[in-house]
Amino acid sequence: MEIDPALFEENERTAPAEDGRRFITLNETKIRNGFVFPNLDICYQTWGTLNESKDNAVLVCHALSGDSNVLGWWERLFGQGKAVDPKEFFIIGANALGGCQGTTGPASTAPDGKPWGSRFPQISVEDMADRHADLLDYLGIEKLRLVAGGSMGGMQALALSTLHPNRVAKCWMTASCQAHSALQIAFNEVGRQAILRDPKFAGGNYHPGDPPTNGLSVARMAGHISYLSEASFEAKFGRRRQSGGSEQFAVESYLSYQGDKFTKRFDANSYLVLTRAIDEFEGNSLESAECEFLLTSFTSDWLYPSHQSRTLWQNCQDIGIEAVHIEIDAPFGHDSFLLETVQQGALIRKFLIGNE
Amino acid sequence: MEIDPALFEENERTAPAEDGRRFITLNETKIRNGFVFPNLDICYQTWGTLNESKDNAVLVCHALSGDSNVLGWWERLFGQGKAVDPKEFFIIGANALGGCQGTTGPASTAPDGKPWGSRFPQISVEDMADRHADLLDYLGIEKLRLVAGGSMGGMQALALSTLHPNRVAKCWMTASCQAHSALQIAFNEVGRQAILRDPKFAGGNYHPGDPPTNGLSVARMAGHISYLSEASFEAKFGRRRQSGGSEQFAVESYLSYQGDKFTKRFDANSYLVLTRAIDEFEGNSLESAECEFLLTSFTSDWLYPSHQSRTLWQNCQDIGIEAVHIEIDAPFGHDSFLLETVQQGALIRKFLIGNE
Repeated sequence: MEIDPALFEENERTAPAEDGRRFITLNETKIRNGFVFPNLDICYQTWGTLNESKDNAVLVCHALSGDSNVLGWWERLFGQGKAVDPKEFFIIGANALGGCQGTTGPASTAPDGKPWGSRFPQISVEDMADRHADLLDYLGIEKLRLVAGGSMGGMQALALSTLHPNRVAKCWMTASCQAHSALQIAFNEVGRQAILRDPKFAGGNYHPGDPPTNGLSVARMAGHISYLSEASFEAKFGRRRQSGGSEQFAVESYLSYQGDKFTKRFDANSYLVLTRAIDEFEGNSLESAECEFLLTSFTSDWLYPSHQSRTLWQNCQDIGIEAVHIEIDAPFGHDSFLLETVQQGALIRKFLIGNE
Repeated sequence: MEIDPALFEENERTAPAEDGRRFITLNETKIRNGFVFPNLDICYQTWGTLNESKDNAVLVCHALSGDSNVLGWWERLFGQGKAVDPKEFFIIGANALGGCQGTTGPASTAPDGKPWGSRFPQISVEDMADRHADLLDYLGIEKLRLVAGGSMGGMQALALSTLHPNRVAKCWMTASCQAHSALQIAFNEVGRQAILRDPKFAGGNYHPGDPPTNGLSVARMAGHISYLSEASFEAKFGRRRQSGGSEQFAVESYLSYQGDKFTKRFDANSYLVLTRAIDEFEGNSLESAECEFLLTSFTSDWLYPSHQSRTLWQNCQDIGIEAVHIEIDAPFGHDSFLLETVQQGALIRKFLIGNE
């Protein structure tokens, strides 16, 4: 595969930042709805070394609120001594298009020096996957050993595997699905409405220093309800009161804390754009996939319930795509994909090195 | 039982309004936290006739957004030719204290001529039950054949049965519980935060003509998610688009429609006060109950899951209170208690007339 270096504008930002993040800038990038970004940043991080045969690369796609720092948010499975070890594998994390952690999104600066804001186009999961393919071009990686992701990350992994089938040997989707159900759309819509109805939203053109934090915070609280299970809420909080003389229930403090913390690191327009992208996603081009699929789901996950993974597995079966679906018994709800280590770890190691 | 007529200020509002609602006014009413209402309205409706032995009275307590019009919102079980027929029974519906459908609540006028607003005290489910007992005094009913309620209504029924045990022969709680779980509190808290963070909330002292409709609407949307099941969301909406050329998903239109409609008939302060009351409720005085309990729950209700009714049944067993728990297979989520007719109808008829 030949990479055209003219595609990439190399600048000082290509050098690793202190936090390990690296950036490349793409020029004149057309997304699938026709919109053209005059320039577009991709923020990524890597761990380990690409081997000579360039067949040990693992790309990890993040969920809604994640970022390129895979060894930060998925440290139970990715890292030294973990199921996927940078001693063996070249691990790549990339912030998704439309996000707010380095890759171009609504809070990024448009050519006129102001944030894109409401002018940011409605990107798709397919567009996110296309940017991952661009990054692979830049890194000189023809084919990934594995693309992996949970939740929204799983959808990106599916999109990359189906739209760029020659780039993916294996695809692991965990706590994810091919297309959102009405319940998943409903949860996202409550969050979107909380943001859209915050007067500070100002049609999406809020001042960066005065964003719609109340709406975004409520959106995140609703999200957190969907990430835990009834059992994990009970185990974590029950009817316990917050310590410190407050009469609040602990679960109330938790939600407000999580909601408010989120507003310090996340952009409201990104929340709208990313949730819309995953609600619209339908994983339509499954038949073009050439990789093997590992699908994991969790007994207590009612946001991305097991039957969705089973349906995707059945769809693979129906068209002769190699796929395995394993339902894992774990009590942490949707968050299980971040917390469950033993079974996911064993499965992913076997999936990664099984054919060697 | 002797009723002291001086307790009740009879006024022209005692006469039935055109919509069937009747009102009584209590003077100097002290609630359990010590707060004294100089006067307090109770809004109620009745159907059928109290028989001579006064043993055919059925009090129905409403859920969060309900009212005294039982034959309106629970018409599948209560009404002519239905499981509980006004030809046989004297059916009473009463708006709960703290509500906004006639009985005194935060939107009611305080002695200074302004709405109570933020000055409205935090009432409890026990206070609601006390007012139901006051209404029974006024109506000259010593003992109810049945007190019934779903969700918040079930909690009121439990409170009346335990705090005023001599007033209740039988108690039917459906899709309800003895005390909220962390998940139930969490859902209510998201709604409360949506309201509290709406700038128009103004510390609870918003102008009646300019209430925090955005916050209340988002609260109601979050509520609706919890009332349906994943299966009923799927059956009702799936990934269907709204008709009329809109690109919106039908479930999105549904939520916005339900949210906005709710703001036209409900008060934001009532939402705060009522959800707080049910979150705080713990049904502590179970051992003082003297009635029989019928507890029904639904397989698809994940807001008030069956295990909560089972726990209450077990608590009754442990202290020798007669109780039956039946889990009903119905797909409508929490809303099943309003929608399921056949099994609830048969059970409640048997429960009502079984000992005759």
